[in-house]
Amino acid sequence: MRPADLKRILARVRRGTLSPARAAAAIAAAPFERLEFATLDHQRALRAGFPEVVFGPGKTPAQLVTIVSRLLKRNDLVLATRVSEAGRTALADAFSGAEIFDRSGAAVIRRRVPPSRRKQGIGRVLILCAGTADLPVAEEALVTARVMGSRAELIADVGVAGLHRLLAHARALRGARVLVVVAGLEGALPSVVGGLTDRPLIAVPTSVGYGAHFRGLAPLLAMLNSCAAGVTVVNVDNGFGAGYAAHLINSAGARR
Amino acid sequence: MRPADLKRILARVRRGTLSPARAAAAIAAAPFERLEFATLDHQRALRAGFPEVVFGPGKTPAQLVTIVSRLLKRNDLVLATRVSEAGRTALADAFSGAEIFDRSGAAVIRRRVPPSRRKQGIGRVLILCAGTADLPVAEEALVTARVMGSRAELIADVGVAGLHRLLAHARALRGARVLVVVAGLEGALPSVVGGLTDRPLIAVPTSVGYGAHFRGLAPLLAMLNSCAAGVTVVNVDNGFGAGYAAHLINSAGARR
Amino acid sequence: MRPADLKRILARVRRGTLSPARAAAAIAAAPFERLEFATLDHQRALRAGFPEVVFGPGKTPAQLVTIVSRLLKRNDLVLATRVSEAGRTALADAFSGAEIFDRSGAAVIRRRVPPSRRKQGIGRVLILCAGTADLPVAEEALVTARVMGSRAELIADVGVAGLHRLLAHARALRGARVLVVVAGLEGALPSVVGGLTDRPLIAVPTSVGYGAHFRGLAPLLAMLNSCAAGVTVVNVDNGFGAGYAAHLINSAGARR
Amino acid sequence: MRPADLKRILARVRRGTLSPARAAAAIAAAPFERLEFATLDHQRALRAGFPEVVFGPGKTPAQLVTIVSRLLKRNDLVLATRVSEAGRTALADAFSGAEIFDRSGAAVIRRRVPPSRRKQGIGRVLILCAGTADLPVAEEALVTARVMGSRAELIADVGVAGLHRLLAHARALRGARVLVVVAGLEGALPSVVGGLTDRPLIAVPTSVGYGAHFRGLAPLLAMLNSCAAGVTVVNVDNGFGAGYAAHLINSAGARR
Amino acid sequence: MRPADLKRILARVRRGTLSPARAAAAIAAAPFERLEFATLDHQRALRAGFPEVVFGPGKTPAQLVTIVSRLLKRNDLVLATRVSEAGRTALADAFSGAEIFDRSGAAVIRRRVPPSRRKQGIGRVLILCAGTADLPVAEEALVTARVMGSRAELIADVGVAGLHRLLAHARALRGARVLVVVAGLEGALPSVVGGLTDRPLIAVPTSVGYGAHFRGLAPLLAMLNSCAAGVTVVNVDNGFGAGYAAHLINSAGARR
Amino acid sequence: MRPADLKRILARVRRGTLSPARAAAAIAAAPFERLEFATLDHQRALRAGFPEVVFGPGKTPAQLVTIVSRLLKRNDLVLATRVSEAGRTALADAFSGAEIFDRSGAAVIRRRVPPSRRKQGIGRVLILCAGTADLPVAEEALVTARVMGSRAELIADVGVAGLHRLLAHARALRGARVLVVVAGLEGALPSVVGGLTDRPLIAVPTSVGYGAHFRGLAPLLAMLNSCAAGVTVVNVDNGFGAGYAAHLINSAGARR
Amino acid sequence: MRPADLKRILARVRRGTLSPARAAAAIAAAPFERLEFATLDHQRALRAGFPEVVFGPGKTPAQLVTIVSRLLKRNDLVLATRVSEAGRTALADAFSGAEIFDRSGAAVIRRRVPPSRRKQGIGRVLILCAGTADLPVAEEALVTARVMGSRAELIADVGVAGLHRLLAHARALRGARVLVVVAGLEGALPSVVGGLTDRPLIAVPTSVGYGAHFRGLAPLLAMLNSCAAGVTVVNVDNGFGAGYAAHLINSAGARR
Amino acid sequence: MRPADLKRILARVRRGTLSPARAAAAIAAAPFERLEFATLDHQRALRAGFPEVVFGPGKTPAQLVTIVSRLLKRNDLVLATRVSEAGRTALADAFSGAEIFDRSGAAVIRRRVPPSRRKQGIGRVLILCAGTADLPVAEEALVTARVMGSRAELIADVGVAGLHRLLAHARALRGARVLVVVAGLEGALPSVVGGLTDRPLIAVPTSVGYGAHFRGLAPLLAMLNSCAAGVTVVNVDNGFGAGYAAHLINSAGARR
Repeated sequence: MRPADLKRILARVRRGTLSPARAAAAIAAAPFERLEFATLDHQRALRAGFPEVVFGPGKTPAQLVTIVSRLLKRNDLVLATRVSEAGRTALADAFSGAEIFDRSGAAVIRRRVPPSRRKQGIGRVLILCAGTADLPVAEEALVTARVMGSRAELIADVGVAGLHRLLAHARALRGARVLVVVAGLEGALPSVVGGLTDRPLIAVPTSVGYGAHFRGLAPLLAMLNSCAAGVTVVNVDNGFGAGYAAHLINSAGARR
Repeated sequence: MRPADLKRILARVRRGTLSPARAAAAIAAAPFERLEFATLDHQRALRAGFPEVVFGPGKTPAQLVTIVSRLLKRNDLVLATRVSEAGRTALADAFSGAEIFDRSGAAVIRRRVPPSRRKQGIGRVLILCAGTADLPVAEEALVTARVMGSRAELIADVGVAGLHRLLAHARALRGARVLVVVAGLEGALPSVVGGLTDRPLIAVPTSVGYGAHFRGLAPLLAMLNSCAAGVTVVNVDNGFGAGYAAHLINSAGARR
Repeated sequence: MRPADLKRILARVRRGTLSPARAAAAIAAAPFERLEFATLDHQRALRAGFPEVVFGPGKTPAQLVTIVSRLLKRNDLVLATRVSEAGRTALADAFSGAEIFDRSGAAVIRRRVPPSRRKQGIGRVLILCAGTADLPVAEEALVTARVMGSRAELIADVGVAGLHRLLAHARALRGARVLVVVAGLEGALPSVVGGLTDRPLIAVPTSVGYGAHFRGLAPLLAMLNSCAAGVTVVNVDNGFGAGYAAHLINSAGARR
Repeated sequence: MRPADLKRILARVRRGTLSPARAAAAIAAAPFERLEFATLDHQRALRAGFPEVVFGPGKTPAQLVTIVSRLLKRNDLVLATRVSEAGRTALADAFSGAEIFDRSGAAVIRRRVPPSRRKQGIGRVLILCAGTADLPVAEEALVTARVMGSRAELIADVGVAGLHRLLAHARALRGARVLVVVAGLEGALPSVVGGLTDRPLIAVPTSVGYGAHFRGLAPLLAMLNSCAAGVTVVNVDNGFGAGYAAHLINSAGARR
Repeated sequence: MRPADLKRILARVRRGTLSPARAAAAIAAAPFERLEFATLDHQRALRAGFPEVVFGPGKTPAQLVTIVSRLLKRNDLVLATRVSEAGRTALADAFSGAEIFDRSGAAVIRRRVPPSRRKQGIGRVLILCAGTADLPVAEEALVTARVMGSRAELIADVGVAGLHRLLAHARALRGARVLVVVAGLEGALPSVVGGLTDRPLIAVPTSVGYGAHFRGLAPLLAMLNSCAAGVTVVNVDNGFGAGYAAHLINSAGARR
Repeated sequence: MRPADLKRILARVRRGTLSPARAAAAIAAAPFERLEFATLDHQRALRAGFPEVVFGPGKTPAQLVTIVSRLLKRNDLVLATRVSEAGRTALADAFSGAEIFDRSGAAVIRRRVPPSRRKQGIGRVLILCAGTADLPVAEEALVTARVMGSRAELIADVGVAGLHRLLAHARALRGARVLVVVAGLEGALPSVVGGLTDRPLIAVPTSVGYGAHFRGLAPLLAMLNSCAAGVTVVNVDNGFGAGYAAHLINSAGARR
Repeated sequence: MRPADLKRILARVRRGTLSPARAAAAIAAAPFERLEFATLDHQRALRAGFPEVVFGPGKTPAQLVTIVSRLLKRNDLVLATRVSEAGRTALADAFSGAEIFDRSGAAVIRRRVPPSRRKQGIGRVLILCAGTADLPVAEEALVTARVMGSRAELIADVGVAGLHRLLAHARALRGARVLVVVAGLEGALPSVVGGLTDRPLIAVPTSVGYGAHFRGLAPLLAMLNSCAAGVTVVNVDNGFGAGYAAHLINSAGARR
Repeated sequence: MRPADLKRILARVRRGTLSPARAAAAIAAAPFERLEFATLDHQRALRAGFPEVVFGPGKTPAQLVTIVSRLLKRNDLVLATRVSEAGRTALADAFSGAEIFDRSGAAVIRRRVPPSRRKQGIGRVLILCAGTADLPVAEEALVTARVMGSRAELIADVGVAGLHRLLAHARALRGARVLVVVAGLEGALPSVVGGLTDRPLIAVPTSVGYGAHFRGLAPLLAMLNSCAAGVTVVNVDNGFGAGYAAHLINSAGARR
């Protein structure tokens, strides 16, 4: 129940066209609007420009096309993640202009907006990944951060066993407002990067490894125990979550 | 080797008072200053106002006093965490004006600065915790964020089994720039809070629980799998890390 | 050996038509009937209307049809769970009127009973699930509870990150005698629902998730550590077990 | 805001003694009472006779006495669990008539009510435990169920390695409305009991064991995988939770 | 109810001194004797000479003395395991002739039987252990096997890193009817011994180790995966269980 | 070097046809025959009648036929376990008279021995399994024990949730010299059986289950923590190992 | 920036053809060459003869051929590991003289060097493996050590359950400078071998096993807890890592 | 049986003073000397200068003094590890000149050898540790390597979050023949160091950390999954094992 609705009811009570008993019943019968108006509407307004997100696994190509079509009617853009090859082909066929990312299986479909009206990305999210096998996860973070509205860049293959490759990017590290660091194997990269910068850093363990890696447990534990202060962690392979959180942090800076 | 030093050497080469060979040797002999000037100095300058941090466990009261004294010579303030009761007494005796936090075992010792010169906290970090047993960890986050330079508040005892207590704080949720959510048991609070806000949210699992809780594993896993986007996680009981990261995020917003 | 049988033997001993030695042998030769009469018959009688249950995995379509046919001779209805698509097709072909549930793979086959004679469901079991991916498990609980004889309803997609959707169902929560709450990811829903009601609540973790979810371990641990009193838990993905227990609780209420 | 309060406001609007604008503000200013009246009041009313519960660990004897005193002002009775020996002595000294349970560390403190006015327990909760070492957990369940308002009995030492001891209690099994089965070691008892009855059964694993028992993990996993349908499980050593859930189930039956 | 009892009842029915109805009631009133006579009596007879066993942890010295006194009235001997030092002193004081084993904390208390009437041990159980730190567990197995009635010997400190020490005992290996092999650390000894003999071999992992030993998990997994056929395993540190099973195997051979 | 060889060398030294130095060299040059004669030959003699065993997984049908052919030249019989369907067909085609066991994938191929000369099985191994899904593992144990030379029987589907089915086999339990008890799910059967008998009992957990079963971990832990003394355990699904150990125990009894 | 480059810049400064300011800028602009020259060049020079390594999984045959071709231009030889059968065929077709290892999926491709110029292997690496199923991992270690430049030999099928087979190779054990010991199942072999030698020993657990093996966890834990001093461990199935480390140790000896 | 002994026997056979039969018996009766002479003697000779090692935990001060005294009679020096404070005091009192290491609890006791006759350490072992809390483990490695006969140095506090501190030691890294890298928390240091050097590197995880560190599991998994080739790993906190293996590797280089 919106404030305006409430006032209208009360005005009718005042005028005598609605009894207090029925007014009380009407207010009680609209169960949680009050809550919504207080908190959720606010949030919804903020999120107006945010994409709807479709999680690909378990959906057929036909289902994907249907879902995306429906969502596009109420949203400026739709992000689909972890879409199979067949699904990506179907989306590319159905929506001309769909942006397809083959490594990560992400796809971005926008309502036609003249490029001139597209908003500039804000701030700067820098995504680093340790090995080429971590690229699918890093790309998912990159696409997510961009589609949310952040400027974002990706630097790949800067694993800790070749420090000079990482150190060559010092300038980029300094220019970022928030960092996403993606690593499989032993997951050491966030600690090293965290020691070189004072920006918020989101660490993403990946399932790249074998044996005592336990599908990402090894780097997950490593990142949770990082000796570098300021490191926070998301689930194994959760590039989407990292890109999303990075945008929230980045835009917290940009908004003010 | 600072840039000025390098230029001085080169000027001497130019003047002929230093041979190229000896200059090359001198440059090579100052092993990693170049790296430092490029990256680390920048960082150090930014961190100038940051506290030094002493991890309490395993240190005797006497050792604590000595370490803090030494650090105070080079820093405006020192934060000690997880200090035993005896250690806190020793610090309070040795440093008049030391702020002692008994729940978390934190202590803050400052060089004497006239209160008028103390900096105002920036932004707003909101820390929520589910149960009173989670307060030590929440307080550690609170003290850390404040001592880093953030305005920070703590709301306790807003567990998910009594939603109305949480919802009563909707205004505070909306006013925060970054949230820290601390919970033991099943660790559900970050997901519920994350659904009510679009701010960056750092989840802190605690070791409060027993049996199949496995000393914090249960809420840690829950938080890593949160259905609310934008949630990142730190280690079990790591209030310090959460407060530190929250300040970095908060100040990223404030600086610009 | 039923009491009546025993008395008949003893009467024959009395009449002298059976020697004590042979009577003793006869009693000893009917090995555990005494136990059975005491406990198991009672139970069997109570269960007369209960379905026989066939666990689908590992059975071919032909085997399924054979088993169900055989069971239908001694039972009013048969419930098959987790039946493959091919198996469901075979059952639908073999038994006209078979009810097939595609999400969960459940199938219910009844002996022809005029609908007028079908019993009304009793009480009310309310099943809630957090996400659409949890629906197969929730449906298995729903079908099981119904086929056992309970009235049961299912409300889907009321995850904790969108509280207003859950709160909109307050009336349904209040009208239930027992709740089944199904959730994957972090498994927070049972704690939130448990805080809104004082009914017995059975929590069902699902394997929906990835990475540090460990195929349902994360929500399983969360549910076992729920801060809401009155929550009990079944195995990961065990919709059948939850529906079965819910019916036992529901009928405990209805019987008296 | 209670319904009566709302109606009073509306009546004043009707009478013209309160303007609609101020009425709207007043309604909006009592933030979540609506939610509470819809859902929580109902629940609170039902719970009126329920005890407040104090979790003992980490509280000094003096704190326990203070907390219990305060709670007794608003409640008819207070249940304290896992209270240390010193704490139990302090409670017994402070509250004459306090019931102290030494095995489990539970204590029940009641406001003085003439015994004649004490309510009869309802239904019947039967608690079984496998070994004498499981008695503390079983007793916690027993005390909890009773203090909630259920009739409850405890049968101890009926482990599966001596089946005849269990089978001797067949009559008691048949007379229960809900069963709580407590077991450490391999946790087999709930499966065996579950096969002998058709009542709802709550299984409680205990930390009684060593080595590959992993402090209760072994019986917890066993109970979650029970071959007996209708078994639900609570956390390791959680006698309180089992007793609480058993009462909810038991009273669901009794209420109707 | 023993067969003789049953026949006596039936004879009285025959003579007409007992009515069939009362006879039926009498048979039904002796609840599970039938079961017992079939199975358990047989077992009890076999076990007549077996010791009663008292598990020490959690019992005070006074409790231990009381329990042992009571058990000695119905048994020829009592075995107490894992008794604390104080408990062992109390037992030694209370029962002259008590055999105390300090490494394992075992104690054996016998009713006075002239040594001439003591039975000879049967067969031969050989217990091997890898390191001196494994001796408490090995001794528990040794005492248990002997007290059950087996001849048993213990060879210590024959770890696999010094094969010659093990191989020097080839004659003893060949002379055993059943082997118990106790090892901590990596738990390799059962595999090596298993390759040198064709006797049944019970492997006992111990909690001797640190770090990635996880209190016995490492040797437990090793023994379960032994490449030597014929190896079976008991719980970590379960010397009692190994000695008990070894005696059952040993006496299976001896009885025939 | 066999004893006879050693004596021949020494005789030649005595006769002077071999110098002590060359004799010493000859003895030293036959590296570990001494070890072998002392220990291994003895063992080999005992095992003469034992089958060679081929582990099926990873071998092609052609490889299986080749390996079995080669082994049959030196052995009276060959046991192959876990052979794929194609492999079993190939073995049946290649070796007329091969015994094929489809549930477990076992195959037994014997050199042609007139049935009259086949040895009688000895003792009695009784194999019990809880559910029909455990039959493949139980059958592997059965075939192994028989092929080793034991008389062995299998009783299926005697799970603990239907105790009367188990108790109906009391006579068979009493007649066995050693028991193998196979169970998945919660693995409770060995504890119940162990309480009904005093024979050595080998427990075999199976991977039958789902969710928190963790592919056999649940019943494995249960069996290791069994409250019934005399239970030893083998690896998950290791029917072969259980049958092998059961034969060793059984024959230890029979040999003497 | 190489030393020569630095000197050239300084010479130009000396000659006045480069200003000190621009020289300083030029030195600063080549960000981390100093680091590289100090440490990494040295390393690179040493590694000149080392192979580039391609990790096969996830690469198509065509990709493999392209990558190897490109690497061969800058390297004398390329090692590819865990290449699929199709990939190995493609490599064999594309590069005449490619050495293909079918068990491990390794492939070695060399630039054409007259055999006369091929370097002799140094030292001696001895690789032992417990079972034939461990051969793929052992072969990977063998090929890696050889291709790095070590003399290396492999002895297979010397599991601990048949000690005499292992002891027969005492001479080879004594002749090695470093040992690699590969084992699945319980992973006992490194402890036994470690007790027979005083050479550095690298233990490699394999995923050969089932059930409570947990894909290599059992032997991994065993090896980390080895009672033989001097044993170090690599990841499960990591034959490459073991061969690489073995060569580093072996050449440390040979170089001096 | 030593070769000389064997020849003496054969000579007596030759002279006719010993019959071949008795000679054969004598040779057979000294069961495994042949094995020992072939393999173990060789090893013993090499190890002549190696210390005996006493593991401190569980030994009283008096026991420690006794054991060390006894060992000193047959050895030049004795190393005791993880000795309690009381134990170290007792050793220092009993053996003048004992070297005591308080951080690690190590103690070295030598027979009086004129310093001039003490052997020079060989090669160079470099031990690095990440934090000061890792020093006890690092010191244990240092003392072990030195007492075995290696030259060894320790560099502390070079964690990856402050790369410049590590890079400042590039010269020391280059001068080492083998590296031991000790780290708790996330265990990233071995990967970074491994990328800077081509020496064999032994990684030692420590139990320094909390929460999701699981007492060393986090860095253990990290090190096993290191992206740097040539890294091998020992058990958590196993400084002794790392120092021992480092000496074996170091001396393999020095011996040749």
